[in-house]
Amino acid sequence: MKKPKLQLACDQSSLKNALKDISKVGEIVDIIECGTILLLQEGELAIECLRALFPDKIIVADTKCADAGQVVARNVSEAGADWMTCICSATLPTMRAAASEVAEVQVELYGDWTIKQAEQWLDIGVHQVIYHQSRDALLNGETWSKKDLNRIKQLIDMGFQVSVTGGLVAKRLKLFKRLNVYAFIAGRAITNSENPVSAALEFQVEINRLWGS
Amino acid sequence: MKKPKLQLACDQSSLKNALKDISKVGEIVDIIECGTILLLQEGELAIECLRALFPDKIIVADTKCADAGQVVARNVSEAGADWMTCICSATLPTMRAAASEVAEVQVELYGDWTIKQAEQWLDIGVHQVIYHQSRDALLNGETWSKKDLNRIKQLIDMGFQVSVTGGLVAKRLKLFKRLNVYAFIAGRAITNSENPVSAALEFQVEINRLWGS
Repeated sequence: MKKPKLQLACDQSSLKNALKDISKVGEIVDIIECGTILLLQEGELAIECLRALFPDKIIVADTKCADAGQVVARNVSEAGADWMTCICSATLPTMRAAASEVAEVQVELYGDWTIKQAEQWLDIGVHQVIYHQSRDALLNGETWSKKDLNRIKQLIDMGFQVSVTGGLVAKRLKLFKRLNVYAFIAGRAITNSENPVSAALEFQVEINRLWGS
Repeated sequence: MKKPKLQLACDQSSLKNALKDISKVGEIVDIIECGTILLLQEGELAIECLRALFPDKIIVADTKCADAGQVVARNVSEAGADWMTCICSATLPTMRAAASEVAEVQVELYGDWTIKQAEQWLDIGVHQVIYHQSRDALLNGETWSKKDLNRIKQLIDMGFQVSVTGGLVAKRLKLFKRLNVYAFIAGRAITNSENPVSAALEFQVEINRLWGS
């Protein structure tokens, strides 16, 4: 199995807080996500600053794009993002338009998406998905279940690179140890911890322990 | 029938272009939308500027929120927005969390939503939806059909306030004349026309002709 990457989600509500958090741990992670909350608050400047600070990291703009795929993709690409996200309820033309302007489109799986839809995403060349426990679902007391793990496996078997997110902490990664997860996405579990550097390293240590050769 | 409102979508990629466009026609419309493209580029500053320019208009933040409903809603509300949008694939906890912080949540209908989902939105007190022809679907050659009109009627009959958008021009409004549409949303049909003031007035004249008492 290939070793999963670690992605840091920057979902602060202000650029200054995002920069304060990311400056400590950005170099430890593999992918840096400019989160939706941050984008909606600070706009493209947030992407530009992340790109300036981390020229060699993969940067994802978590636009959760539902429409106007080409314009949104061109804008985030010009600001310095490598990848962007589309919401699963976006139409195929939207995903196709987005994919024409960025290196990778990742589909964010929320609500009632279907395997039939997922096949269509593969057909148009979109082969990354993000499997969520939504922040609000977690607040509502829901958590990772056998059903989630089966669904993730099904997507991997179809040929998707599947990133996983929602309430992840390092000690929970072993839940996924039989799965060839593409990336684990964590945000506040790292940035809000007492020692963010230790928290990020703990993720990397656990990934190495479970998936390293 | 109640006269539909006119909503102007500001979907420019820069604040300066949005301000140039809106300054001419903002007073003619009923609702001003801070579009997703603009929000992703300029952040909350875009909402703050629209609020400053038009203190008496309804301002909608078109966040198409899929997660973190409460944080996003609080942020846009603090910036000056009255309403915000959630994507139809957002979970009910997300919509409920958003609705706790803004006066109205509007659900954006993209992709394969169902009537059963729509009933759940009503159950949690969300009674506004936006029926779309997506920009990318329009670019792909799709247009308003009998099926769209029936779906809109069904939503109105269920008790929703239904706003309609996607490639609308004034002369196309008569397509909807048997329907109690809540608002027509237009963007570039107004701002990109040779004379934006005339284009906006043409919408209001047509709305008055078709739905005025």
